[in-house]
Amino acid sequence: MSDEKVLLNEIRRDPILGGWVIIDKIKPRIPALNTFDGVKFDMENGNGCPFCPGNEHKTPKEIIAFREEGSHPDSKGWWVRVVPSKDPVLKIEGEDEHIGVGMYDMVMGVGAHEVIIETPDHSHDLAAVSESQIEKVIWAYRDRIMDLYKDKRIRYALVFKNRGFMSGATISHSHSQLIGLPITPKIIREELENCKNHYNKKERCLFCDILSSEKQSEERVLLISKNFIAFCPYASRFPFEITIMPLKHDCDFTRISKDEAIDLGRVVKNVLNALNSALSNPPYNMSLHTSPNRTPRIGYWITIEDDYHWHFEIIPRLQRVAGFEIGTSFYYNPTPPELAANVLRQFIRKE
Amino acid sequence: MSDEKVLLNEIRRDPILGGWVIIDKIKPRIPALNTFDGVKFDMENGNGCPFCPGNEHKTPKEIIAFREEGSHPDSKGWWVRVVPSKDPVLKIEGEDEHIGVGMYDMVMGVGAHEVIIETPDHSHDLAAVSESQIEKVIWAYRDRIMDLYKDKRIRYALVFKNRGFMSGATISHSHSQLIGLPITPKIIREELENCKNHYNKKERCLFCDILSSEKQSEERVLLISKNFIAFCPYASRFPFEITIMPLKHDCDFTRISKDEAIDLGRVVKNVLNALNSALSNPPYNMSLHTSPNRTPRIGYWITIEDDYHWHFEIIPRLQRVAGFEIGTSFYYNPTPPELAANVLRQFIRKE
Repeated sequence: MSDEKVLLNEIRRDPILGGWVIIDKIKPRIPALNTFDGVKFDMENGNGCPFCPGNEHKTPKEIIAFREEGSHPDSKGWWVRVVPSKDPVLKIEGEDEHIGVGMYDMVMGVGAHEVIIETPDHSHDLAAVSESQIEKVIWAYRDRIMDLYKDKRIRYALVFKNRGFMSGATISHSHSQLIGLPITPKIIREELENCKNHYNKKERCLFCDILSSEKQSEERVLLISKNFIAFCPYASRFPFEITIMPLKHDCDFTRISKDEAIDLGRVVKNVLNALNSALSNPPYNMSLHTSPNRTPRIGYWITIEDDYHWHFEIIPRLQRVAGFEIGTSFYYNPTPPELAANVLRQFIRKE
Repeated sequence: MSDEKVLLNEIRRDPILGGWVIIDKIKPRIPALNTFDGVKFDMENGNGCPFCPGNEHKTPKEIIAFREEGSHPDSKGWWVRVVPSKDPVLKIEGEDEHIGVGMYDMVMGVGAHEVIIETPDHSHDLAAVSESQIEKVIWAYRDRIMDLYKDKRIRYALVFKNRGFMSGATISHSHSQLIGLPITPKIIREELENCKNHYNKKERCLFCDILSSEKQSEERVLLISKNFIAFCPYASRFPFEITIMPLKHDCDFTRISKDEAIDLGRVVKNVLNALNSALSNPPYNMSLHTSPNRTPRIGYWITIEDDYHWHFEIIPRLQRVAGFEIGTSFYYNPTPPELAANVLRQFIRKE
């Protein structure tokens, strides 16, 4: 091994609010104003797209894939393929040093950045692929999180999906991303803390309470399957915001069973299809909220995650996000969740 | 007075994170997907624009205006004009009832929603108007906040500005907005609490510490005037994010003096001009963070705001906001603030 130090991005802590920001020190650059221009976005096709079968050489070597028996890594024959990001915001080499910079706090940008290619079909949205295909995507999330959590430097695995240009996506071929972080994001930390406080007061899980409240009133519920509920949350920040969570209390997504993954695949497909039908294929973001890496480490012996309840958030991006919403976390939503649920329910397929 | 109950929006509390969302119950609607289409945005002109001189009848009656001597309310002859919003998200009539809805929490949507028209000139950005004009805008913020804070129902006055289509603006004529809220936004509450914690530990203001740290290193500073500093914050979430704050510790923006307002007008103009020159007139958001209404009320006798330090945030909107940034408060910024400051400094006018 060479002595050369790997150049890393910096993860800086906001001293006022406590959130964290990856600051690009590897390729610092000024974004062009025309990044709002979506024209070029959907012009790729199977020939140029790095995520299409036959173009496996255009991505870094695959980490795992669900593929036909007898087919070879980094060649055709896969259903779901996981590869490292070509432009990783965090790198796996290096120490997760925590550094004080004057009064400020910084963590060196070690971690992982992977891409889950959800289908070989360039034109298919996740809603259009088969249920068994979505189940493989879910299983890939599980496998990759479990693998990354063997690395004690990685404290949180952030799984998310940007669909459509205005959601922030840069490649239209359907895919999710996984960023393995050396710190737990602020909002996840707050969710963990608020769950803990709720449990300490009531001896009940906050999300389980929400679940039974939603089941009872039904006005915001989209569907209840054998293992999952999908609903529009009471204080939806965005029109048609959707939460999917397991009926059974569990803080840890990776403990999902094969049967539950099959059921979840059906629920996700059903909900995304309803969204596409009701709103003409809107751009959306989907993200998984689950417990951080629970492997004990120094200074963190007591795990508080047992009170937590994993879930998926789906946020359609129908509107521009105004500055006061980013700057103050104060939202204005023109669509009451009861109305959104009513509209979506008309497109939910009955089992 | 009629007994009829005023129809109000609902301000709902997110049970998981504690943020608040205005849910539209007055005009509930589904946003059209084409709200991302900016084509129509800049097509208004002086003839149709409700904020242009001669069209004063197109807005509700003015609340205050800085106008030529002898000119009449709701007619030409003004420099800065404050009017109620035509589509207020909160209404001034009604009780600020705090209501439990099952396990959820809600506050009736009383408050104020005003528009500060910053210039009679349809084509001028705030950066293009004279320093004395910006000073009047700042003075209008002060006057309106002070007036609204006489109303004990209003706990926080949110002053913000959306410039350019992608910032969320719906009218291109330069203006700011003021929303008087019956609750304090979550981020402001967090800033207040973190300032209090810092003060309790160190007997120093958190923002004053940041100020002296930035003054010392200089690498992120844009300018220091007689009374203000402008800099790109250490953990900037967005490329070219800028903070402007007073050198003198004060929690309360409305205590600004006439001299300081003149100085602040110069600083804001200088900074916005540099931003426009460096980045070709980017869309941006600006917001004021100041202490909540400090008038004592039941259950809130102890004011914690003295440890706070008011400031302006400017966020250029060069990039789409990705879902994980909204969903987890975890940001990726390609432009280190040191680089942004370096670029902007070349366009800062020396006094």
